[in-house]
Amino acid sequence: DARAWTGWGSAGREASKGGRRPAGRALPIERTRGSEILFGVAPCSMALSQARRDLFRLFLKRSGGPQRAVSSELVLQAAARGVPVLHVGRRELDALCGGRVHQGVCLEATPLCFKRLEEAEEPGLENGESPNRRLLWLVLEQIQDPMNLGALLRSAYFLGVDRVVTSRRNSCPLTPTVSKASSGAMEVFDVYSTDDLRSFLKAKAAEGWEVVGTVSQFETVENVPVISCLEFRWNKPIILVIGSEGDGLSLETQLLCHQMLVIPSGRALHPGIESLNVSVATGILLHSICSQKLRHGD
Amino acid sequence: DARAWTGWGSAGREASKGGRRPAGRALPIERTRGSEILFGVAPCSMALSQARRDLFRLFLKRSGGPQRAVSSELVLQAAARGVPVLHVGRRELDALCGGRVHQGVCLEATPLCFKRLEEAEEPGLENGESPNRRLLWLVLEQIQDPMNLGALLRSAYFLGVDRVVTSRRNSCPLTPTVSKASSGAMEVFDVYSTDDLRSFLKAKAAEGWEVVGTVSQFETVENVPVISCLEFRWNKPIILVIGSEGDGLSLETQLLCHQMLVIPSGRALHPGIESLNVSVATGILLHSICSQKLRHGD
Repeated sequence: DARAWTGWGSAGREASKGGRRPAGRALPIERTRGSEILFGVAPCSMALSQARRDLFRLFLKRSGGPQRAVSSELVLQAAARGVPVLHVGRRELDALCGGRVHQGVCLEATPLCFKRLEEAEEPGLENGESPNRRLLWLVLEQIQDPMNLGALLRSAYFLGVDRVVTSRRNSCPLTPTVSKASSGAMEVFDVYSTDDLRSFLKAKAAEGWEVVGTVSQFETVENVPVISCLEFRWNKPIILVIGSEGDGLSLETQLLCHQMLVIPSGRALHPGIESLNVSVATGILLHSICSQKLRHGD
Repeated sequence: DARAWTGWGSAGREASKGGRRPAGRALPIERTRGSEILFGVAPCSMALSQARRDLFRLFLKRSGGPQRAVSSELVLQAAARGVPVLHVGRRELDALCGGRVHQGVCLEATPLCFKRLEEAEEPGLENGESPNRRLLWLVLEQIQDPMNLGALLRSAYFLGVDRVVTSRRNSCPLTPTVSKASSGAMEVFDVYSTDDLRSFLKAKAAEGWEVVGTVSQFETVENVPVISCLEFRWNKPIILVIGSEGDGLSLETQLLCHQMLVIPSGRALHPGIESLNVSVATGILLHSICSQKLRHGD
C-alpha cells in the first residue's frame, strides 16, 4: 500500500458540511507515500505547468480561496495533467501544509531533488562557443534558511543567472517552503549541487572561469583582492560564490576566490549593523554584474 | 499595578533547577504592562545602545546561549543602562517571544512608534543647503509583511537612504519581528509615517522633488513614463515609492509619480514568475540609484 495517514483534514466535499465532527478536528487525508505538499498559488501553478514532479492531487479551498480566474486556471492545468482536484475547507489545507500561507491551494507531489553536476550538459567554452558569451553561475555555500534559498533562486532566475550550484553539505534541500519563497521559480529552474565545492571551484578556475566571492566590508582576506562591486568588470565567465547569512564564506572557499566584491554602504554604519540581508546583497551583486551585460547589449 | 501575567516562563535562576515543575510548563514571567519583548542578539543589543525605548529586563539563556563575548557585551550594556539581567532557560525565552528565533536573548521594553512627519526637522532644500546635495527618501505604501518591512529598513539604512516614510494605513507597525528582520536597524533608524500619502507626495513634488515609482515590467501606466533603472539619472532630490508585494503601488499613487522604474530581467520569464521579492527589488533600485552618487563622488 503506497498510502500513509498523515495530518488531519477531510478529503472531498462531504466531510465538512454536516458539522458533526468534533470541533477542531477533521477526517485525516491519506497521503501518497513519499509525497510532499506544495502550497501557494505560484508553486502549485508552476509545478502543474512543468513535467518535473509526479502530481497526485490538487487541493483547492472550497470557498474564499484564490480568485475565480486563478482557480479556473489551476483546475484546467490539473485536468490537462490528469490530476484529481479536491475541494476542501481551510482547516484541511492548514493541516496539509502545516499551517503555512497556502493562499487556498495545495498540491500533493513527489519532491524535487538537486541535479548532480555530472548530469549537466557542459556549456563548454571550448566547444566552439563565442568567447564573448558571458556566463554567470551562482554558487551557494551552506545556505540553510529556506526563505533565503527561495529568494536567492527567484533572483537568480529573474536576473538571468545561467546556473545555480549549491554545496550539498549543510544546505537546505528543495522543500515546498523554498518553492514558495522562490515564488515558484524553483519549479522551472534547475538547481545543481556538488559534494565537493572546493574541487569544483578549482576545476572551473583551471578552465578559465573567474571565481568571485563576497564580503560585507572592506576587510582583508589573505591575498585575495577586495574591490567595490561598482569597479568589477565582467570579462570572462564568472562564478559568484555566496556564503551563509551568519558566517559568510568559509575561509577555505575565500582562498579559492580570485577577488572579493563589496557593496559600498551609503552612510557610516553603527557597529553590529554592517551588512545587508544575504538575498538582498546577492540581488544587488547579480544586478550590478548583469547590468554590464545589458549596457553592452551582449 | 503596572504588571500583567503573560506567557509561561520562569524568572530567575531558581525555578528550573529542581525539576519539580510539570513537564512542558514553567512558572509565568510577569510582564510590565504595555511592554513588548524584543528577541535576537542584534535587536536587543541595538536597543540597549540607544535611548529610544524604556528598558525593563534583559533575559539571557542560562547555558548555550550567545557566545561568551556576545553575552558579556550585553550584560555590560545592560549594566550601563541600569537594566536588570535575568538568566533563564530556553523554554522561558521561547515563551517570552512566542517561539521565535531568539538566539538566547530577549529584552523587555516599551514599543517603538513611527515618528510623525511634522516632528521631523525639515532638511529644507531652501535653507541655504547646496542644491547639489542629493537626497533620497524611501516611501513604503502598505507594506504589511513584517519580514519585508524589516529587510527594507535594513537595506535603506545600509545603502544611505535619508528618510523612510510609511503610509500609516494598512502598514505593518514597528514590531519586534520587524526589528529582528531589520537586524536591529529599526532600533537606530527613524521611521516616519503619514496619514495622507497622497497629499505628502503632492507637497514634495511641488517643492521640486522627483517622485519615482516602480513597476515589475515595462507595462504602460497612464501617462507616466516607464524606464529601466539603468537609464535613470539622479538630478534632484528623489522619493522612491514602493508598493506592497501582492498589489504593487495603488493606481492613485502611480498617477502621482513622475516616472516609473523597472529592473530589467536577464532572461525570458515564465508567465507568473515575472517579479523579484519586494525587498530584493528595492535593494537593487536603491543601490542602482546610490551608485550614481558614489561614482560621482558626491
